[in-house]
Amino acid sequence: MIGIFDSGVGGLTVVKEIFKHLPNYQIIYFGDTARLPYGTKGADFVKKYSDKITGWLLNKKAKIIIIACHTSSAWASDMLRKKYKNIPIFDMINSAVKDVVKTTKNKKIGVIGTPGTIESGSWNKKLLNEDNSLTVYSASCPLFVPLVEMGFTEGKVTEVIAKEYLKDIKSKKIDTLVLACTHYPLLKKTIQKVMGRNVVIIDPAETVALEIKSFLNKNINLNKKIKKTGSSKFYFSDKPYNLEKISKLCFDKKIEPVIKDPFL
Amino acid sequence: MIGIFDSGVGGLTVVKEIFKHLPNYQIIYFGDTARLPYGTKGADFVKKYSDKITGWLLNKKAKIIIIACHTSSAWASDMLRKKYKNIPIFDMINSAVKDVVKTTKNKKIGVIGTPGTIESGSWNKKLLNEDNSLTVYSASCPLFVPLVEMGFTEGKVTEVIAKEYLKDIKSKKIDTLVLACTHYPLLKKTIQKVMGRNVVIIDPAETVALEIKSFLNKNINLNKKIKKTGSSKFYFSDKPYNLEKISKLCFDKKIEPVIKDPFL
Repeated sequence: MIGIFDSGVGGLTVVKEIFKHLPNYQIIYFGDTARLPYGTKGADFVKKYSDKITGWLLNKKAKIIIIACHTSSAWASDMLRKKYKNIPIFDMINSAVKDVVKTTKNKKIGVIGTPGTIESGSWNKKLLNEDNSLTVYSASCPLFVPLVEMGFTEGKVTEVIAKEYLKDIKSKKIDTLVLACTHYPLLKKTIQKVMGRNVVIIDPAETVALEIKSFLNKNINLNKKIKKTGSSKFYFSDKPYNLEKISKLCFDKKIEPVIKDPFL
Repeated sequence: MIGIFDSGVGGLTVVKEIFKHLPNYQIIYFGDTARLPYGTKGADFVKKYSDKITGWLLNKKAKIIIIACHTSSAWASDMLRKKYKNIPIFDMINSAVKDVVKTTKNKKIGVIGTPGTIESGSWNKKLLNEDNSLTVYSASCPLFVPLVEMGFTEGKVTEVIAKEYLKDIKSKKIDTLVLACTHYPLLKKTIQKVMGRNVVIIDPAETVALEIKSFLNKNINLNKKIKKTGSSKFYFSDKPYNLEKISKLCFDKKIEPVIKDPFL
């Protein structure tokens, strides 16, 4: 199985891309709805639970781990790769960084995410590591997640808020914008409208799915070990709020969540 | 000490009223920032942690408990009073209910709160218990909390969202509106503007402070036991997001938070 974890339901936008590019693979998903959101929590808290969840997924026979949560990717991915040396661990930053570098022409990049993701400085560091001629502008957009969860993916309210958040980044004339939060792809239409047609929007969920596809094509032994029969499983540590709404926004499959907190 | 708990920093609006009406009393505050928000979590989760926190506060020598969190008040207050029989426990619903009944003239009441508070039906039940000729209209306003936490307490965005949330309630011509969430008093100006000057807005934080003042005047022995020297203490289970901003909105005292999760 492919293990995917997130702080809540936002990681379903990553599941969507896995379903699209690796349709026959069985997924085990864990959404830490009891402790969400991660985006405004401390680094230690995010690291601790990212570690606990990774261990839990491996116990459940996951052979690959995808850190769908961007805040976990930012704070915990390096630590997890160090701790679980033999497990391929994919996060939302590493694979997208290469894509961003390939995409930009004017070397001006925008990154938007939760306060935690932006504050961690991970995107900035990893983008400059890849190409130090880039200039990176970032902004945290803390109202975007609740907007999506309440169903305000388009319309006047969302546009007013998006304009406010994106004002500074837009003025820098970036040509590439990274959606560094699982919920933001669901606002893509509004974000594109505010930024203008010439800005390329990068959704790391798609990048990571393509990277894993190519990784599995090369790693035949591991590939064989990943179950391709049976249905995917979705675990949540507490009743997921608006699960039906979000999963409908992501894909047509019906999710039957298992709700239990293994860390209580 | 007076023990006050909340899911996060919103309970500081209750502390503000205690500081105002009982200025000499020492407070011990616990904000469960590691697990916030409670407003979209399941009832069992909210009950479990409300219980754990109450036990923790009593251990720290609290002589009175105030449940500042409206979602905890809605789901857990009856259970807590049953379990901790000898401890005076105040919540945000019981004392405000009487105030609402005294205030309304046309018997049409509005209640706004988090999805959890509204879904619990507690307000409806307790208001009708007090006066069954009332008609209660309620609405959940899930974006209000993030709006306050991001500093959008006034302005265009907040007004557009408030108009959207309050549309139905306003059309019912209520004369009394309860702010059944700790954060909402910080939006009072906008809410009053949208609802119109003739609607009386009830802030349960103020009601509860006045009720406790009168309770302590009557219960002299208990009153003697509550420490009135030493400074108040503020504990949070994780780094509180925007604590400075929220505490500045509430009062002028500087808070030195102790950050540690006793339930990890």
